[in-house]
Formats: sequence, C-alpha cells, structure tokens
Amino acid sequence: MFNSIHFNSKGRAVTNASDPAVITALKAIVGDTNVIVDPDRVEPYGADAVKEKFPPEAVVFPESTGDIVEILKLANEHLFPVTARGGGVGYTGGAVPVDGGIVVGTDRMKKIVEINADDLYVVCQPGLTTFEVQQAVGEHGLMFAPDPASYKDSFIGGNIAENAGGMRTPKYGVTKHHVLGLEVVTATGEVIRTGGKTVKNVVGFDLTGLMCGSEGMLGIITEATLKLLPMPEATSTVRANFHSMEAACKVLTKFTPCGLLPMAMEVIDKFCVAAVEENFAFGLSKEAEAILLVAVDGSAEEVERNAVMIERIIGENGGFDILRAKSKEEEDKLWDVRRAISPSLMKYGTLKINEDVVVPRSKVPELVAKIEQIGKKHDTFVANFGHAGDGNIHVNFVVDRDNADAIARARKCVSETFKLSVELGGTISGEHGIGYVKAQYMEYAIDEPTLEIMKGIKRVFDPNGILNPGKMFV
Amino acid sequence: MFNSIHFNSKGRAVTNASDPAVITALKAIVGDTNVIVDPDRVEPYGADAVKEKFPPEAVVFPESTGDIVEILKLANEHLFPVTARGGGVGYTGGAVPVDGGIVVGTDRMKKIVEINADDLYVVCQPGLTTFEVQQAVGEHGLMFAPDPASYKDSFIGGNIAENAGGMRTPKYGVTKHHVLGLEVVTATGEVIRTGGKTVKNVVGFDLTGLMCGSEGMLGIITEATLKLLPMPEATSTVRANFHSMEAACKVLTKFTPCGLLPMAMEVIDKFCVAAVEENFAFGLSKEAEAILLVAVDGSAEEVERNAVMIERIIGENGGFDILRAKSKEEEDKLWDVRRAISPSLMKYGTLKINEDVVVPRSKVPELVAKIEQIGKKHDTFVANFGHAGDGNIHVNFVVDRDNADAIARARKCVSETFKLSVELGGTISGEHGIGYVKAQYMEYAIDEPTLEIMKGIKRVFDPNGILNPGKMFV
Repeated sequence: MFNSIHFNSKGRAVTNASDPAVITALKAIVGDTNVIVDPDRVEPYGADAVKEKFPPEAVVFPESTGDIVEILKLANEHLFPVTARGGGVGYTGGAVPVDGGIVVGTDRMKKIVEINADDLYVVCQPGLTTFEVQQAVGEHGLMFAPDPASYKDSFIGGNIAENAGGMRTPKYGVTKHHVLGLEVVTATGEVIRTGGKTVKNVVGFDLTGLMCGSEGMLGIITEATLKLLPMPEATSTVRANFHSMEAACKVLTKFTPCGLLPMAMEVIDKFCVAAVEENFAFGLSKEAEAILLVAVDGSAEEVERNAVMIERIIGENGGFDILRAKSKEEEDKLWDVRRAISPSLMKYGTLKINEDVVVPRSKVPELVAKIEQIGKKHDTFVANFGHAGDGNIHVNFVVDRDNADAIARARKCVSETFKLSVELGGTISGEHGIGYVKAQYMEYAIDEPTLEIMKGIKRVFDPNGILNPGKMFV
Repeated sequence: MFNSIHFNSKGRAVTNASDPAVITALKAIVGDTNVIVDPDRVEPYGADAVKEKFPPEAVVFPESTGDIVEILKLANEHLFPVTARGGGVGYTGGAVPVDGGIVVGTDRMKKIVEINADDLYVVCQPGLTTFEVQQAVGEHGLMFAPDPASYKDSFIGGNIAENAGGMRTPKYGVTKHHVLGLEVVTATGEVIRTGGKTVKNVVGFDLTGLMCGSEGMLGIITEATLKLLPMPEATSTVRANFHSMEAACKVLTKFTPCGLLPMAMEVIDKFCVAAVEENFAFGLSKEAEAILLVAVDGSAEEVERNAVMIERIIGENGGFDILRAKSKEEEDKLWDVRRAISPSLMKYGTLKINEDVVVPRSKVPELVAKIEQIGKKHDTFVANFGHAGDGNIHVNFVVDRDNADAIARARKCVSETFKLSVELGGTISGEHGIGYVKAQYMEYAIDEPTLEIMKGIKRVFDPNGILNPGKMFV
C-alpha cells in the first residue's frame, strides 16, 4: 500500500538505512556511541517475547524529541523503515523491525518531567518502565492504574502505543483511559501535541485516543501526560477452588448485582493448576478443576466489608477451600499460584503460543470449553488462564519448538480460537495487539470498510510508509 | 479545504439539496412524511442553544442505518451538506447547518437493542436521550455514568459525537471513557464498526475514541455499545459557604491526600450567589463569597464515612454554614442553588455567553480571579460557576442582546479568557466542543501540525466535505 522500500520479510533485511551516508547522518544526530551497527549487538533489538529474529540494520538511541524529528526526516528523505522500541517485551512483534531499517530505542528518554499531586497527573518521557512511573508517583501517595503483567520491563511509551491492559481493568479500565495528553513525532517528523493536562478536553479530534494502541505506526510518543488517582488505602484478595471452569466463571457476574466492582478477577483452568502443582507443590486440592482469584481495593473498612461479601458470594456459588489474605504477605502468597503458571506450562513443550482473546465475560465458560475441544481436535495441549473479569483469556497452546507438524496444528488451533472469539461477540486481542503476528487475522475482526479507514489514517500520518512497516495490515 | 459547494454562511443557504430531484430521492429513502421542506417547519432545526438561525433546506428523519447510508451516498453524488442532529441543545452549533443542506434528525432511531447486565453493556440507537438510556439501564440496577446537564434533552448520539462531560467526571471520566463500540456511517456512506462489547480491545486503531468528540464531521453514529457500572447504593452531598472563591477552590485538592475521590465538586462564585439569592431567596449567608458542593457515591457505609470526612476537611479549610444532606430530598435541596444559577443570571442581561474553559484544577482560583479582571477591563458582567473538581469552569458573560457595543466587548472578554485558559495549562473547551462558534479560536489551543493531521483525518472520512461543513476548522 505504501511506497516500496527494497526489503525482504525474514532475516536481516537490507534497506537504504545501511547506506554509510545514513549511518553517518544518524551518528551526527545522536552521537557516535548511540548508534549500534555491529550485527552481534543489534541482534537483541530484532526480537521481542515472540522470539523470532529480525535484526535491524542499526539501533539508534535518541535523547530528545528533536533527535527523533531529525531521525524521521532522514528516514523520509532516504526511505528506510523506522521501528520504535521500548522494553521490547511485546507478544505480537510490535517493536520488531520485520522489514529491516533502524530501531529507535527510547532507553535514554527516562525523565519524569512533573508530578502534580494537586492536579493528579504526571508528565514523563517514554523510556521509563511502567513500574518506574508507578514507583515515582507512589511516593506522592498516587497511583497510575494500568498494570500490565510486564510492567517491570515494558516502557510506558510502549504501553501507550499498545494500549496495554492488565489485571486491574475491571475497575480501572485500560491504558487509554489514563492518558491525558501526548507529544508525538509523526512519521514525517512533525511534532504534534494531543490532549492536555485535563480529563475534560474537547478541542478537535481526540488524537490521544487514536495514538493509544496505534502500535508505533503513526508516530513516536516522546512525552506523555498521565492521569493519576489517589492510592487506595488497602487491598484484599480472596482465592477459591471450583469443581469446574464453568462454575468459577459463572461467579464473575454475581458481584455486580451486589454493587461490587472488584479490581481484579482472574481464573486458572485445571491444566494450569496441574502444571503449577507439579512444579511448585502449593498443596492445591486435587479436586480443584479451576481457581478463581478476586481482589478489591479502597479504604480499609470498605475492603474488609467487600472481601467478606466476596467470600460469601463465592461460597454460595460452588467455591471451596476459600482463602482470604489477612496481610500483605498472605495476599502475595495467594497470587503466587497465578504467577507460577507461565513458567510451569513449559513442562508441556518448548514453545508456548500465548494468545489473548477477549469475549463478553459471561461467554468465558463457553469460550474455554470450546477451546478445549479445538485443542483435542488438533491434538494440541491447551491451558487457559487470565483476566476473566473482563473476558480476556490467555490461551496457551504448548508444543515442541522442533516439531513442525505440531506447530502447524497449533496454528490451526489459533485460527479457530480467533474465529470462535469473534463469534462469541469478542475479538482477537484484548491487550497484546496485532503487530506482525496477528496481521493475517485482522479480517476476522475488522470488516473491509473499517480497515480502509484505518489504512487511510495511516497514510495521513505516514505517507511514505516509513514507520513500523509490516504490522497490522497485510 | 474541500470541494466547494455553493453556499453562503448566514441565513438560508441554497445548495444542491434544494434540487427537486434530491428532495424526491430523499422522500423515496425515508418516506414522504419524514422529509420536511416547509420553511416554517425546518426553522427549529437550524439552531441550537446558541440561538443563531441557519435553517436547513430540508430535514430528514431516517429510521435505520440503511437509510443513512443512502442519504449520504445521495449527498456525495449531488454534493450537498449533511448535518446530523440529536437533541439540538449544544452550545457551539455542532448540529447546526451553517452552510445549508439537509439536517438528518435521529429522532426515530430510539431502540434499545440490548441491555446485558452480566456483561455490563447496553446497545442502543442514537436517538434516545441520555436520560432515557440511564432510565432503561437503571431498571437493571446499572448506571451509565456520563451526566451532562442537558441529559434530559440531548441525545446519546450527540453526547458521543461531542464527548460530553458533566458533573460526575472527577470520579467517572467523560463520555469517551464509557463507549465500547460504535456503528458509524462515514461521510461517504460506508458502514464501519469500531470497538466492540469489551473494555479490552486492541485490534486496529482506536476509531471509537476518534469518533467520540468528532462533532459529526467524520460520520453519523447509528448504534452505540456503552459500558455500564453497578448502580451505587447511595450518594451524599455536602454544601458549604466560603469567604472567597480562592478558599473554596483550594479545598478541591485536599480530598485526594485522604484517599477520597468525590463524584462531583462544583463551585459557584459570589455573582452567581447574589443572582440566585435575589431570584430565589434561598436564605444564603450574606458572607458567602463562594459556595462549594461536593458529592460522593458508593455503598451506604462508605458514603456516610466519606461525607463526614468531607465535612471535616471543608471545616478545616475555611468553609462555614456546612450542610450535609440526610435524605434524598435534602440532597436535592442542596443542589437547587446550583440549578438556579443559569436562569438567575439572565437578570444581568438578555444575552448570556456561556463558555466552558478548563484548566488543571489547582489553577481555578487564578483563572477565576483573572477572568474577573478581564470582565472589569471590558466593562462586562461576568459570573463563574461549574465543575471545579475537574477544572472545567462555566464562564458567563452577560450583556444585552440589542447592545452591539456590549456584545463586541464581551467577545473581547471571551477571546482573552480562551488565551488565559491555555496559558494556565488548560484549553478552550472542556465539554461544549468547538462547532462553528469556537472554530476561530482553535489555533489558541492546537498548533499547526496537529491541526493538519486533524484535517487529514477529516479528508479520509469525508473526501467531499459533505458532513457538517463549517465546523472546527476555519
């Protein structure tokens, strides 16, 4: 769809970025030591959690918005791909230069510009981890609510570009609900400013919302103004076992009629339970076919009252072995099972294909039951866990990395799972995004006229197709 | 910027919409009785709360998405302007056909398609008032949180298109935070579907966010999926007087450090207090230079506890005559003062220019003090009240409708107030939008490159400039 750049789609693509004049110009912009071209050293910047390798021709570390402007103007002049990269821990290759060119790492842009406790916002650069942002505002008694599991490794810029989710969504929503304003360098090297410092702002089209989840395809985020909330005084977690996944998931809709809005509601299926138990021997009941974790936050009194109510509701709806944390330490222990899942699943194979479909939460039992059938049909191990409270399930197909046939079967499972999610009123990604990994499946969820509008918007920001090519659209 | 249509900008513009063949075609689409051309009957559809008249050539009432597709295809074929209209009660002319053409009224599209209490969403058509939506979901114990003051008159489609605010923003955010998905007919007559039924959804660019606040310039919203919350068990309101507006506003930042996030925080200045007292004789203290209203919601216990805490904080920070509602009736009475402001201000003149600037909330005292100076400088009466908790102040310049000189002076006040708001880190509209009324001031808040991106996006959706011309951009 865009002006072509000569590249291939696997291995180290060679584009105009390799032109010595370009490398020299890049060094002039950011300084010699902030441009890496050595193949060994650029390699780590060519992959993310998907673990496929697309090493860039150069990695460049700008220090400022001005640096990024110059880099992008150079890219448009010489026509080479530019892919912005934060922590590089995504699950869909959003920060991976699949068509070569340069990677722009925001690692040096780590400033907290302002924390305003009175006005409840923080202004920061994109290169801080989300954890670092949370720590910084936490010192002022404030909370940045979005909490993707990767928050200690993923950068805030990447979290915004991917519109990251996490566990606290049932109460707090996703990243886009907490971004007030952005400074962005568009693909052509223009600096734009979206939104502002206030929640209310209806001046022009909402480009802030558009940038959230744009996967680095429209511009590079160089500064963000994020909404903060008062840090809740207390949290509490209740964990319970269930005799079936269906029973565990059915409880999810029982809290709202009691006026409860839990912060997090996570489920774990029997395959995850078995794997965790085998690896970590938590002493979980052999009768546990599913585990439900429910967390609440707020004032200490409110949390106590709500946690008791949650225990009662769970007990009335088939939960057993109900545990409620009485301290922060006990609460951490209850969550250990959840944290142990990902490593434990590797016992079933060397390649874990982790999808993150989403359906209206009442459809989770049907989704999970049908995914089990899909796994059986294609003789593929599958385990499900995740953010059931917002219908966002992590579906893990685990196979052997060296078994091409098994991988092909797993791919069939993935494709059928995506179709199923859309049929159930959901979609193919709740929080990981599309990247290059799911680009071929976009048509399952997005119809042609809607896709054409998205492509049109891409052309407005990036007429030369410079920025993060090979993503979202095929 | 767009293909020109022959029109003028005041009075009844004549465009290709007046072609008898067009009128016949419109009648064929929606039925004879659903097309109005009689000048007397179209006139009410040519104005909103701004009360300037731009009567359309025809008003058309479609019944379905398909009708709107056909209308917009016809408009692109014959090149005439189309302006979508909901309740028609906006403050910036967003639904007013300033360049003539037809008005598309969504009055017949009033279906609630689905209320899903388990999955916390409602699917509805655009022609319901926001109050009707709230009533319908309220019967299921659920809440649609956005609450613009106009909610009994404004349509949900218009509220989405304007990204309406309201009083509950400090806790619940604005309309865009509660829209999960949309069906939209773009200006060219293509049906697109944005978002879905889940909070988590990162498949493609966030067109839902982009449509919120797009002021009917990109497409016509034909169906919306809205996020619902459990209806809070209780609410409570505390009202207090202060010796200065500054003192009242300074309290706004004292709640968060105590972990409190009030649902609403409203201030009323001394000029409003005097006007209200003169008209309604509530018996407010003569010492009241400002009034603060703070409301909380949640469980009954939590509300009681928080209301007591708010009383204490207000008392410690200069508030006096502190009243706390003990019942729903008492609560309504406390709010009567707030509701009495708008009609009372008309005692100062026959034309009230109501702006809605927004600044970071700690800047409200400075904003209000400087606006008073601006009023004095230009010999114009000004009264301020509004949503101080989110920094969104309604600035009312009141003059005589027949006094051209006074109106010119008020316009100077408006322009200086907009500049001031931007200087204080805010912007020119918190909830009313731009429309044609503020289009000339866009450059105060939005820089050229950002504006160019917005114009580019407009062209993607509306290459012929059919939809709601004369708005946002000058």
